[in-house]
Amino acid sequence: MTRQQLFQQILQKRSYLCVGLDSDINRIPKHLLKFDDPVFEFNKQIIDATKDLCVAYKPNTAFYESRGSAGWQSLEKTIAYIPNTHFTIADAKRGDIGNTSTQYAKAFFESMTFDSITVAPYMGVDSVSPFLEFENKWVILLALTSNKGSQDFQYKDLDDEPASTADRFPLFEKVIRVAQKWGTAENLMYVVGATHPEMFERIRSIAPDHFLLVPGVGAQGGDLRKISKFGMNDHVGLLVNSSRSIIFASDGEDFGEAARGVALGYQEEMAGILGEMKVVTG
Amino acid sequence: MTRQQLFQQILQKRSYLCVGLDSDINRIPKHLLKFDDPVFEFNKQIIDATKDLCVAYKPNTAFYESRGSAGWQSLEKTIAYIPNTHFTIADAKRGDIGNTSTQYAKAFFESMTFDSITVAPYMGVDSVSPFLEFENKWVILLALTSNKGSQDFQYKDLDDEPASTADRFPLFEKVIRVAQKWGTAENLMYVVGATHPEMFERIRSIAPDHFLLVPGVGAQGGDLRKISKFGMNDHVGLLVNSSRSIIFASDGEDFGEAARGVALGYQEEMAGILGEMKVVTG
Repeated sequence: MTRQQLFQQILQKRSYLCVGLDSDINRIPKHLLKFDDPVFEFNKQIIDATKDLCVAYKPNTAFYESRGSAGWQSLEKTIAYIPNTHFTIADAKRGDIGNTSTQYAKAFFESMTFDSITVAPYMGVDSVSPFLEFENKWVILLALTSNKGSQDFQYKDLDDEPASTADRFPLFEKVIRVAQKWGTAENLMYVVGATHPEMFERIRSIAPDHFLLVPGVGAQGGDLRKISKFGMNDHVGLLVNSSRSIIFASDGEDFGEAARGVALGYQEEMAGILGEMKVVTG
Repeated sequence: MTRQQLFQQILQKRSYLCVGLDSDINRIPKHLLKFDDPVFEFNKQIIDATKDLCVAYKPNTAFYESRGSAGWQSLEKTIAYIPNTHFTIADAKRGDIGNTSTQYAKAFFESMTFDSITVAPYMGVDSVSPFLEFENKWVILLALTSNKGSQDFQYKDLDDEPASTADRFPLFEKVIRVAQKWGTAENLMYVVGATHPEMFERIRSIAPDHFLLVPGVGAQGGDLRKISKFGMNDHVGLLVNSSRSIIFASDGEDFGEAARGVALGYQEEMAGILGEMKVVTG
Protein backbone atom coordinates (compact mmCIF):
# COMPACT_ATOMS: atom_id res chain seq x y z
CA MET A 1 0.00 0.00 0.00
CA THR A 2 1.30 3.46 -0.90
CA ARG A 3 1.27 6.52 1.34
CA GLN A 4 -1.41 8.10 -0.83
CA GLN A 5 -3.63 5.00 -0.62
CA LEU A 6 -3.25 4.94 3.15
CA PHE A 7 -4.19 8.63 3.30
CA GLN A 8 -7.29 7.92 1.18
CA GLN A 9 -8.32 5.13 3.56
CA ILE A 10 -7.99 7.52 6.48
CA LEU A 11 -10.14 10.16 4.78
CA GLN A 12 -12.76 7.63 3.76
CA LYS A 13 -13.12 6.10 7.24
CA ARG A 14 -12.35 9.30 9.14
CA SER A 15 -10.11 7.16 11.27
CA TYR A 16 -6.39 6.63 11.78
CA LEU A 17 -6.91 3.74 14.13
CA CYS A 18 -4.75 0.63 14.06
CA VAL A 19 -6.07 -2.41 15.92
CA GLY A 20 -3.33 -4.46 17.57
CA LEU A 21 -3.96 -8.18 17.34
CA ASP A 22 -2.00 -9.20 20.45
CA SER A 23 -4.17 -12.28 20.61
CA ASP A 24 -2.89 -14.08 23.68
CA ILE A 25 -4.57 -17.50 23.76
CA ASN A 26 -4.81 -17.25 27.55
CA ARG A 27 -6.87 -14.07 27.34
CA ILE A 28 -9.33 -14.79 24.54
CA PRO A 29 -12.89 -15.80 25.50
CA LYS A 30 -13.06 -19.37 26.75
CA HIS A 31 -15.89 -20.43 24.43
CA LEU A 32 -13.51 -20.08 21.47
CA LEU A 33 -11.26 -22.86 22.71
CA LYS A 34 -13.56 -25.42 21.10
CA PHE A 35 -12.48 -24.22 17.62
CA ASP A 36 -9.60 -25.87 15.73
CA ASP A 37 -7.72 -22.60 15.74
CA PRO A 38 -9.15 -20.44 18.54
CA VAL A 39 -6.76 -17.53 17.94
CA PHE A 40 -7.64 -17.31 14.26
CA GLU A 41 -11.35 -17.51 15.12
CA PHE A 42 -10.85 -14.71 17.63
CA ASN A 43 -9.00 -12.54 15.11
CA LYS A 44 -11.60 -13.18 12.42
CA GLN A 45 -14.41 -11.94 14.63
CA ILE A 46 -12.38 -8.94 15.82
CA ILE A 47 -11.60 -8.02 12.21
CA ASP A 48 -15.23 -8.43 11.12
CA ALA A 49 -16.37 -6.24 14.01
CA THR A 50 -13.87 -3.42 13.52
CA LYS A 51 -12.83 -3.25 9.87
CA ASP A 52 -15.01 -0.25 8.96
CA LEU A 53 -13.59 1.70 11.92
CA CYS A 54 -9.85 1.24 11.45
CA VAL A 55 -7.30 1.55 8.67
CA ALA A 56 -4.66 -0.90 9.92
CA TYR A 57 -4.14 -4.15 11.79
CA LYS A 58 -1.00 -4.98 13.72
CA PRO A 59 -0.47 -8.53 14.98
CA ASN A 60 2.44 -8.70 17.42
CA THR A 61 4.37 -11.82 16.42
CA ALA A 62 5.28 -12.73 20.02
CA PHE A 63 1.73 -13.83 20.77
CA TYR A 64 1.87 -16.25 17.85
CA GLU A 65 5.42 -17.56 18.27
CA SER A 66 4.72 -18.46 21.88
CA ARG A 67 2.49 -21.22 20.47
CA GLY A 68 5.16 -22.54 18.09
CA SER A 69 4.35 -23.59 14.53
CA ALA A 70 0.63 -23.76 15.39
CA GLY A 71 0.79 -20.10 16.37
CA TRP A 72 2.65 -19.26 13.20
CA GLN A 73 -0.21 -20.88 11.25
CA SER A 74 -2.73 -18.68 13.07
CA LEU A 75 -0.69 -15.68 11.98
CA GLU A 76 -0.57 -16.86 8.36
CA LYS A 77 -4.35 -17.33 8.31
CA THR A 78 -4.89 -13.95 9.94
CA ILE A 79 -2.83 -11.98 7.44
CA ALA A 80 -4.63 -13.78 4.61
CA TYR A 81 -7.99 -12.83 6.14
CA ILE A 82 -7.38 -9.09 6.58
CA PRO A 83 -9.00 -7.17 3.67
CA ASN A 84 -6.45 -5.62 1.32
CA THR A 85 -8.03 -2.24 1.96
CA HIS A 86 -6.22 -2.31 5.30
CA PHE A 87 -2.59 -1.55 5.99
CA THR A 88 -0.96 -4.51 7.73
CA ILE A 89 1.90 -4.31 10.20
CA ALA A 90 3.98 -7.25 11.38
CA ASP A 91 4.96 -6.00 14.81
CA ALA A 92 8.04 -8.18 14.90
CA LYS A 93 10.82 -5.77 15.93
CA ARG A 94 13.36 -7.64 13.81
CA GLY A 95 16.77 -6.56 12.55
CA ASP A 96 19.97 -8.49 11.84
CA ILE A 97 23.02 -8.40 9.56
CA GLY A 98 22.20 -7.84 5.89
CA ASN A 99 21.69 -11.33 4.47
CA THR A 100 19.66 -12.26 7.55
CA SER A 101 17.40 -9.19 7.42
CA THR A 102 16.64 -10.17 3.83
CA GLN A 103 15.37 -13.50 5.15
CA TYR A 104 13.12 -11.72 7.64
CA ALA A 105 11.83 -9.51 4.83
CA LYS A 106 10.98 -12.62 2.83
CA ALA A 107 9.18 -14.09 5.84
CA PHE A 108 6.90 -11.10 6.31
CA PHE A 109 6.66 -9.57 2.82
CA GLU A 110 6.63 -12.69 0.63
CA SER A 111 5.84 -15.84 2.63
CA MET A 112 3.18 -13.71 4.30
CA THR A 113 2.00 -10.50 2.62
CA PHE A 114 2.37 -7.83 5.28
CA ASP A 115 2.65 -4.23 4.06
CA SER A 116 5.16 -3.38 6.76
CA ILE A 117 7.32 -4.64 9.60
CA THR A 118 8.61 -2.98 12.75
CA VAL A 119 12.43 -2.99 12.88
CA ALA A 120 14.86 -2.23 15.74
CA PRO A 121 17.57 0.28 14.76
CA TYR A 122 20.41 -0.87 17.04
CA MET A 123 22.38 -2.71 14.34
CA GLY A 124 22.35 0.22 11.92
CA VAL A 125 22.04 0.70 8.19
CA ASP A 126 22.73 -2.78 6.83
CA SER A 127 20.17 -4.30 9.22
CA VAL A 128 17.41 -1.96 8.00
CA SER A 129 18.12 -1.38 4.29
CA PRO A 130 17.31 -4.93 3.11
CA PHE A 131 13.69 -4.39 4.13
CA LEU A 132 13.55 -1.12 2.15
CA GLU A 133 14.44 -2.88 -1.08
CA PHE A 134 11.01 -4.49 -1.36
CA GLU A 135 8.66 -2.47 -3.53
CA ASN A 136 5.55 -1.02 -1.89
CA LYS A 137 6.65 -2.39 1.48
CA TRP A 138 7.45 -0.37 4.56
CA VAL A 139 9.87 -0.33 7.46
CA ILE A 140 8.49 1.05 10.72
CA LEU A 141 11.60 1.86 12.70
CA LEU A 142 11.61 1.95 16.49
CA ALA A 143 12.47 5.50 17.53
CA LEU A 144 10.91 6.39 20.88
CA THR A 145 9.02 3.45 22.34
CA SER A 146 6.12 3.67 24.75
CA ASN A 147 7.66 1.68 27.60
CA LYS A 148 9.58 2.66 30.72
CA GLY A 149 12.83 1.26 29.28
CA SER A 150 12.80 3.98 26.61
CA GLN A 151 14.61 6.03 29.30
CA ASP A 152 17.58 3.65 29.41
CA PHE A 153 19.13 4.41 26.02
CA GLN A 154 16.70 6.22 23.71
CA TYR A 155 16.69 9.39 25.82
CA LYS A 156 20.43 9.47 26.45
CA ASP A 157 22.26 12.33 24.86
CA LEU A 158 24.65 11.42 22.14
CA ASP A 159 27.37 13.39 20.39
CA ASP A 160 26.98 13.39 16.69
CA GLU A 161 30.37 14.97 16.18
CA PRO A 162 32.60 14.41 19.21
CA ALA A 163 34.28 17.78 18.68
CA SER A 164 31.10 19.78 18.84
CA THR A 165 28.51 20.22 21.54
CA ALA A 166 26.02 21.87 19.20
CA ASP A 167 25.04 18.57 17.62
CA ARG A 168 24.11 16.81 20.81
CA PHE A 169 20.70 15.17 20.99
CA PRO A 170 19.07 12.03 22.30
CA LEU A 171 19.63 8.66 20.64
CA PHE A 172 16.03 8.40 19.41
CA GLU A 173 16.47 11.68 17.55
CA LYS A 174 19.73 10.49 16.04
CA VAL A 175 17.90 7.35 14.86
CA ILE A 176 15.22 9.46 13.16
CA ARG A 177 17.77 11.77 11.54
CA VAL A 178 20.10 9.04 10.29
CA ALA A 179 17.32 6.78 9.02
CA GLN A 180 15.97 9.57 6.83
CA LYS A 181 19.01 8.95 4.65
CA TRP A 182 18.02 5.29 4.34
CA GLY A 183 14.37 5.58 3.35
CA THR A 184 11.74 8.10 2.34
CA ALA A 185 8.29 9.12 3.57
CA GLU A 186 7.01 6.57 1.04
CA ASN A 187 8.62 3.51 2.64
CA LEU A 188 9.71 4.43 6.16
CA MET A 189 7.67 5.22 9.27
CA TYR A 190 8.77 5.64 12.88
CA VAL A 191 7.41 4.22 16.12
CA VAL A 192 6.78 7.01 18.62
CA GLY A 193 4.97 6.09 21.81
CA ALA A 194 1.86 8.05 22.84
CA THR A 195 3.37 8.16 26.32
CA HIS A 196 5.72 10.93 25.13
CA PRO A 197 3.25 13.61 23.88
CA GLU A 198 5.79 16.39 24.57
CA MET A 199 8.11 14.93 21.92
CA PHE A 200 5.78 14.96 18.93
CA GLU A 201 6.38 18.60 18.03
CA ARG A 202 10.13 18.10 18.07
CA ILE A 203 9.88 14.92 16.01
CA ARG A 204 7.70 16.65 13.44
CA SER A 205 10.36 19.34 13.06
CA ILE A 206 12.84 16.61 12.07
CA ALA A 207 10.52 14.31 10.13
CA PRO A 208 7.61 16.38 8.84
CA ASP A 209 6.37 13.95 6.21
CA HIS A 210 6.84 10.46 7.64
CA PHE A 211 3.97 8.51 9.10
CA LEU A 212 4.32 7.75 12.80
CA LEU A 213 3.01 4.54 14.32
CA VAL A 214 1.84 5.48 17.80
CA PRO A 215 1.35 2.73 20.37
CA GLY A 216 0.52 3.42 23.98
CA VAL A 217 -3.02 4.78 23.74
CA GLY A 218 -5.47 2.75 25.83
CA ALA A 219 -3.97 0.29 28.33
CA GLN A 220 -0.71 2.29 28.46
CA GLY A 221 -2.48 5.63 29.03
CA GLY A 222 -1.42 7.91 26.15
CA ASP A 223 -3.59 10.94 25.23
CA LEU A 224 -5.05 10.73 21.71
CA ARG A 225 -5.97 14.41 21.45
CA LYS A 226 -2.57 15.64 22.52
CA ILE A 227 -0.55 13.45 20.21
CA SER A 228 -2.90 14.25 17.33
CA LYS A 229 -2.54 17.98 17.86
CA PHE A 230 1.26 17.88 17.80
CA GLY A 231 1.80 14.91 15.51
CA MET A 232 -0.57 15.39 12.60
CA ASN A 233 0.71 16.47 9.18
CA ASP A 234 -0.94 17.17 5.84
CA HIS A 235 -1.38 13.43 5.17
CA VAL A 236 -2.54 12.94 8.77
CA GLY A 237 0.71 11.03 9.24
CA LEU A 238 -0.42 9.08 12.28
CA LEU A 239 -1.48 5.51 12.85
CA VAL A 240 -2.63 5.28 16.44
CA ASN A 241 -2.64 1.76 17.77
CA SER A 242 -4.65 0.22 20.53
CA SER A 243 -4.47 -3.48 21.26
CA ARG A 244 -5.70 -4.75 24.61
CA SER A 245 -8.29 -2.03 25.26
CA ILE A 246 -10.10 -3.06 22.07
CA ILE A 247 -9.59 -6.79 21.63
CA PHE A 248 -10.04 -7.70 25.29
CA ALA A 249 -12.91 -5.29 25.97
CA SER A 250 -14.99 -8.32 26.95
CA ASP A 251 -14.06 -11.92 27.66
CA GLY A 252 -17.59 -13.15 26.98
CA GLU A 253 -19.39 -14.21 23.82
CA ASP A 254 -20.02 -10.51 23.09
CA PHE A 255 -16.29 -9.78 22.67
CA GLY A 256 -16.72 -8.70 19.03
CA GLU A 257 -19.47 -6.26 19.86
CA ALA A 258 -17.50 -4.96 22.85
CA ALA A 259 -14.37 -4.51 20.71
CA ARG A 260 -16.48 -2.64 18.17
CA GLY A 261 -17.78 -0.35 20.90
CA VAL A 262 -14.28 0.66 22.00
CA ALA A 263 -13.05 0.99 18.41
CA LEU A 264 -16.07 3.16 17.61
CA GLY A 265 -15.19 5.42 20.53
CA TYR A 266 -11.71 5.93 19.07
CA GLN A 267 -13.05 6.40 15.54
CA GLU A 268 -15.54 9.04 16.64
CA GLU A 269 -12.89 10.90 18.60
CA MET A 270 -10.57 10.72 15.56
CA ALA A 271 -13.32 11.92 13.20
CA GLY A 272 -13.83 14.86 15.55
CA ILE A 273 -10.13 15.68 15.63
CA LEU A 274 -9.84 15.38 11.83
CA GLY A 275 -12.73 17.83 11.53
CA GLU A 276 -11.21 20.30 14.00
CA MET A 277 -7.87 20.07 12.21
CA LYS A 278 -9.75 20.72 8.94
CA VAL A 279 -8.39 17.52 7.37
CA VAL A 280 -11.89 16.34 6.56
CA THR A 281 -15.07 18.37 6.38
CA GLY A 282 -18.66 17.47 7.27
CA MET B 1 22.73 -25.04 31.29
CA THR B 2 24.73 -23.24 33.99
CA ARG B 3 27.93 -21.28 33.47
CA GLN B 4 29.89 -23.99 35.25
CA GLN B 5 28.42 -26.72 33.05
CA LEU B 6 29.27 -24.74 29.94
CA PHE B 7 32.82 -24.27 31.19
CA GLN B 8 33.09 -28.04 31.78
CA GLN B 9 31.94 -28.73 28.23
CA ILE B 10 34.60 -26.36 26.92
CA LEU B 11 37.34 -28.07 28.93
CA GLN B 12 36.17 -31.52 27.91
CA LYS B 13 36.06 -30.75 24.19
CA ARG B 14 38.90 -28.22 24.25
CA SER B 15 36.66 -26.09 22.12
CA TYR B 16 34.62 -22.94 22.51
CA LEU B 17 33.12 -23.23 19.06
CA CYS B 18 29.49 -22.45 18.35
CA VAL B 19 28.10 -23.69 15.03
CA GLY B 20 25.57 -21.32 13.49
CA LEU B 21 22.70 -23.14 11.83
CA ASP B 22 21.81 -20.43 9.30
CA SER B 23 20.30 -23.16 7.18
CA ASP B 24 19.06 -21.28 4.12
CA ILE B 25 17.03 -23.74 2.04
CA ASN B 26 18.44 -22.15 -1.12
CA ARG B 27 22.00 -22.95 -0.11
CA ILE B 28 21.76 -26.49 1.24
CA PRO B 29 22.87 -29.35 -1.04
CA LYS B 30 20.33 -30.06 -3.75
CA HIS B 31 20.14 -33.81 -3.08
CA LEU B 32 18.46 -33.04 0.28
CA LEU B 33 15.44 -31.49 -1.38
CA LYS B 34 13.91 -34.94 -1.82
CA PHE B 35 13.42 -35.25 1.96
CA ASP B 36 10.15 -34.21 3.63
CA ASP B 37 11.98 -31.60 5.64
CA PRO B 38 15.25 -30.83 3.82
CA VAL B 39 16.38 -28.20 6.31
CA PHE B 40 15.96 -30.51 9.29
CA GLU B 41 17.78 -33.29 7.41
CA PHE B 42 20.60 -30.85 6.69
CA ASN B 43 20.81 -29.73 10.33
CA LYS B 44 20.74 -33.33 11.56
CA GLN B 45 23.73 -34.27 9.46
CA ILE B 46 25.61 -31.08 10.37
CA ILE B 47 24.98 -31.76 14.07
CA ASP B 48 26.05 -35.41 13.78
CA ALA B 49 29.23 -34.35 11.99
CA THR B 50 30.27 -31.59 14.39
CA LYS B 51 28.89 -32.32 17.84
CA ASP B 52 32.15 -33.59 19.34
CA LEU B 53 33.94 -30.45 18.12
CA CYS B 54 31.65 -27.69 19.37
CA VAL B 55 29.92 -26.72 22.59
CA ALA B 56 26.99 -24.74 21.20
CA TYR B 57 24.56 -24.50 18.29
CA LYS B 58 22.94 -21.27 17.18
CA PRO B 59 20.09 -21.39 14.66
CA ASN B 60 19.25 -17.94 13.36
CA THR B 61 15.46 -17.78 13.34
CA ALA B 62 15.29 -15.68 10.14
CA PHE B 63 16.27 -18.67 8.00
CA TYR B 64 13.35 -20.65 9.44
CA GLU B 65 10.70 -17.90 9.51
CA SER B 66 11.30 -17.15 5.84
CA ARG B 67 9.64 -20.52 5.16
CA GLY B 68 6.60 -19.79 7.32
CA SER B 69 5.11 -22.39 9.65
CA ALA B 70 6.96 -25.17 7.79
CA GLY B 71 10.22 -23.45 8.64
CA TRP B 72 9.15 -23.05 12.24
CA GLN B 73 8.59 -26.80 12.35
CA SER B 74 12.13 -27.40 11.07
CA LEU B 75 13.35 -25.22 13.93
CA GLU B 76 11.30 -27.14 16.50
CA LYS B 77 12.68 -30.45 15.26
CA THR B 78 16.21 -29.08 15.23
CA ILE B 79 16.18 -27.86 18.82
CA ALA B 80 14.73 -31.22 19.90
CA TYR B 81 17.55 -33.03 18.07
CA ILE B 82 20.50 -31.12 19.56
CA PRO B 83 22.05 -33.17 22.42
CA ASN B 84 21.46 -31.61 25.83
CA THR B 85 25.22 -31.54 26.37
CA HIS B 86 25.24 -28.57 24.01
CA PHE B 87 24.37 -24.98 24.81
CA THR B 88 21.62 -23.79 22.47
CA ILE B 89 21.13 -20.23 21.28
CA ALA B 90 18.02 -18.92 19.55
CA ASP B 91 19.57 -16.14 17.50
CA ALA B 92 16.32 -14.23 17.31
CA LYS B 93 17.31 -10.67 18.31
CA ARG B 94 13.95 -10.11 19.98
CA GLY B 95 12.89 -7.47 22.51
CA ASP B 96 9.56 -5.77 23.16
CA ILE B 97 7.54 -4.21 25.98
CA GLY B 98 7.35 -6.36 29.12
CA ASN B 99 4.29 -8.55 28.61
CA THR B 100 5.34 -9.15 25.01
CA SER B 101 8.92 -10.12 25.85
CA THR B 102 7.45 -12.68 28.24
CA GLN B 103 5.64 -14.21 25.26
CA TYR B 104 8.91 -14.40 23.32
CA ALA B 105 10.56 -16.03 26.33
CA LYS B 106 7.80 -18.64 26.38
CA ALA B 107 8.28 -19.25 22.66
CA PHE B 108 11.99 -19.99 22.96
CA PHE B 109 12.38 -21.27 26.52
CA GLU B 110 9.17 -23.28 26.97
CA SER B 111 7.49 -24.04 23.64
CA MET B 112 11.01 -24.83 22.44
CA THR B 113 13.76 -25.54 24.94
CA PHE B 114 16.57 -23.17 24.00
CA ASP B 115 19.09 -22.34 26.72
CA SER B 116 19.37 -18.76 25.54
CA ILE B 117 18.11 -16.09 23.20
CA THR B 118 19.78 -13.06 21.64
CA VAL B 119 18.01 -9.83 22.59
CA ALA B 120 18.30 -6.27 21.22
CA PRO B 121 18.82 -3.65 23.95
CA TYR B 122 17.18 -0.62 22.30
CA MET B 123 13.93 -0.77 24.32
CA GLY B 124 15.71 -0.96 27.69
CA VAL B 125 15.20 -2.75 30.96
CA ASP B 126 11.59 -3.90 30.74
CA SER B 127 12.21 -5.43 27.31
CA VAL B 128 15.11 -7.54 28.61
CA SER B 129 14.22 -8.43 32.20
CA PRO B 130 11.30 -10.77 31.39
CA PHE B 131 13.77 -13.17 29.74
CA LEU B 132 15.98 -13.13 32.84
CA GLU B 133 13.18 -14.39 35.04
CA PHE B 134 13.38 -17.89 33.57
CA GLU B 135 15.55 -20.19 35.65
CA ASN B 136 18.70 -21.58 34.03
CA LYS B 137 18.00 -19.59 30.88
CA TRP B 138 20.18 -16.89 29.39
CA VAL B 139 19.88 -13.54 27.65
CA ILE B 140 22.61 -12.79 25.12
CA LEU B 141 22.38 -9.05 24.69
CA LEU B 142 23.54 -7.29 21.52
CA ALA B 143 26.39 -4.98 22.50
CA LEU B 144 28.82 -4.50 19.61
CA THR B 145 27.66 -6.36 16.53
CA SER B 146 29.90 -7.61 13.74
CA ASN B 147 28.33 -5.67 10.87
CA LYS B 148 29.14 -2.35 9.23
CA GLY B 149 26.01 -0.76 10.73
CA SER B 150 27.53 -1.10 14.22
CA GLN B 151 29.14 2.27 13.39
CA ASP B 152 25.79 4.04 13.06
CA PHE B 153 24.73 4.05 16.71
CA GLN B 154 26.73 1.56 18.79
CA TYR B 155 29.97 3.52 18.44
CA LYS B 156 28.44 6.95 19.00
CA ASP B 157 29.51 8.68 22.19
CA LEU B 158 26.84 9.13 24.74
CA ASP B 159 26.70 11.23 27.89
CA ASP B 160 25.83 9.23 30.93
CA GLU B 161 25.38 12.33 33.02
CA PRO B 162 24.69 15.37 30.85
CA ALA B 163 26.57 17.63 33.28
CA SER B 164 29.79 15.67 33.15
CA THR B 165 32.17 14.86 30.34
CA ALA B 166 34.03 12.28 32.38
CA ASP B 167 31.34 9.67 31.92
CA ARG B 168 31.22 9.81 28.16
CA PHE B 169 31.51 6.54 26.28
CA PRO B 170 30.03 4.76 23.28
CA LEU B 171 26.50 3.39 23.33
CA PHE B 172 27.64 -0.24 23.24
CA GLU B 173 29.66 0.33 26.41
CA LYS B 174 26.68 1.98 28.08
CA VAL B 175 24.61 -1.07 27.13
CA ILE B 176 27.14 -3.39 28.76
CA ARG B 177 27.40 -1.26 31.90
CA VAL B 178 23.67 -0.76 32.39
CA ALA B 179 22.73 -4.36 31.65
CA GLN B 180 25.07 -5.58 34.38
CA LYS B 181 22.49 -4.22 36.81
CA TRP B 182 19.82 -6.36 35.14
CA GLY B 183 21.51 -9.76 35.08
CA THR B 184 24.58 -11.60 36.30
CA ALA B 185 27.41 -13.59 34.75
CA GLU B 186 25.17 -16.62 35.38
CA ASN B 187 22.32 -15.52 33.10
CA LEU B 188 23.57 -12.74 30.85
CA MET B 189 26.07 -12.79 27.99
CA TYR B 190 26.94 -10.12 25.43
CA VAL B 191 27.32 -10.25 21.67
CA VAL B 192 30.65 -8.75 20.63
CA GLY B 193 31.65 -9.12 16.99
CA ALA B 194 35.03 -10.62 16.12
CA THR B 195 35.41 -7.75 13.66
CA HIS B 196 36.27 -5.44 16.59
CA PRO B 197 39.31 -7.20 18.15
CA GLU B 198 40.62 -3.88 19.54
CA MET B 199 37.56 -3.61 21.78
CA PHE B 200 37.84 -6.90 23.67
CA GLU B 201 40.33 -5.64 26.24
CA ARG B 202 38.15 -2.65 27.06
CA ILE B 203 35.03 -4.81 27.28
CA ARG B 204 36.79 -7.23 29.63
CA SER B 205 37.66 -4.33 31.92
CA ILE B 206 33.92 -3.58 32.24
CA ALA B 207 32.56 -7.13 32.18
CA PRO B 208 35.30 -9.47 33.36
CA ASP B 209 33.10 -12.47 34.14
CA HIS B 210 30.39 -12.54 31.50
CA PHE B 211 30.53 -14.91 28.57
CA LEU B 212 30.77 -13.19 25.19
CA LEU B 213 29.16 -14.62 22.08
CA VAL B 214 31.47 -13.73 19.23
CA PRO B 215 30.14 -13.86 15.67
CA GLY B 216 32.12 -12.71 12.68
CA VAL B 217 34.88 -15.32 12.50
CA GLY B 218 34.92 -17.06 9.10
CA ALA B 219 32.86 -15.46 6.33
CA GLN B 220 33.02 -12.04 8.04
CA GLY B 221 36.81 -12.19 8.53
CA GLY B 222 37.38 -11.90 12.32
CA ASP B 223 40.66 -13.15 13.85
CA LEU B 224 40.21 -16.02 16.33
CA ARG B 225 43.63 -15.72 17.93
CA LYS B 226 43.38 -12.00 18.56
CA ILE B 227 39.92 -12.07 20.08
CA SER B 228 40.89 -15.08 22.21
CA LYS B 229 43.99 -13.33 23.54
CA PHE B 230 42.08 -10.23 24.63
CA GLY B 231 38.69 -11.77 25.39
CA MET B 232 39.40 -14.91 27.40
CA ASN B 233 38.72 -15.03 31.14
CA ASP B 234 39.15 -17.70 33.82
CA HIS B 235 36.04 -19.56 32.58
CA VAL B 236 37.20 -19.06 28.97
CA GLY B 237 34.20 -16.74 28.65
CA LEU B 238 33.99 -16.95 24.87
CA LEU B 239 31.67 -18.71 22.49
CA VAL B 240 33.04 -18.13 19.02
CA ASN B 241 30.48 -18.67 16.31
CA SER B 242 30.93 -19.59 12.72
CA SER B 243 27.97 -20.29 10.48
CA ARG B 244 28.43 -20.22 6.72
CA SER B 245 32.11 -21.21 6.66
CA ILE B 246 31.20 -24.48 8.38
CA ILE B 247 27.74 -25.46 7.23
CA PHE B 248 28.23 -24.48 3.59
CA ALA B 249 31.79 -25.80 3.28
CA SER B 250 30.52 -28.04 0.49
CA ASP B 251 27.27 -28.10 -1.45
CA GLY B 252 27.73 -31.73 -2.45
CA GLU B 253 26.82 -35.01 -0.76
CA ASP B 254 29.98 -34.68 1.33
CA PHE B 255 28.69 -31.55 3.10
CA GLY B 256 28.76 -33.19 6.53
CA GLU B 257 32.34 -34.31 6.15
CA ALA B 258 33.35 -30.92 4.76
CA ALA B 259 31.63 -29.14 7.67
CA ARG B 260 33.47 -31.44 10.06
CA GLY B 261 36.75 -30.56 8.40
CA VAL B 262 36.28 -26.82 8.92
CA ALA B 263 34.94 -27.29 12.46
CA LEU B 264 37.95 -29.49 13.26
CA GLY B 265 40.24 -26.71 12.06
CA TYR B 266 38.61 -24.32 14.52
CA GLN B 267 38.63 -26.86 17.32
CA GLU B 268 42.33 -27.59 16.87
CA GLU B 269 43.18 -23.91 16.81
CA MET B 270 41.07 -23.41 19.94
CA ALA B 271 42.71 -26.37 21.71
CA GLY B 272 46.07 -24.80 20.90
CA ILE B 273 45.03 -21.42 22.26
CA LEU B 274 43.56 -22.98 25.42
CA GLY B 275 46.89 -24.75 25.93
CA GLU B 276 48.93 -21.58 25.40
CA MET B 277 46.66 -19.67 27.77
CA LYS B 278 47.15 -22.49 30.30
CA VAL B 279 43.40 -23.08 30.58
CA VAL B 280 43.84 -26.75 29.74
CA THR B 281 46.98 -28.82 29.90
CA GLY B 282 48.13 -31.69 27.74
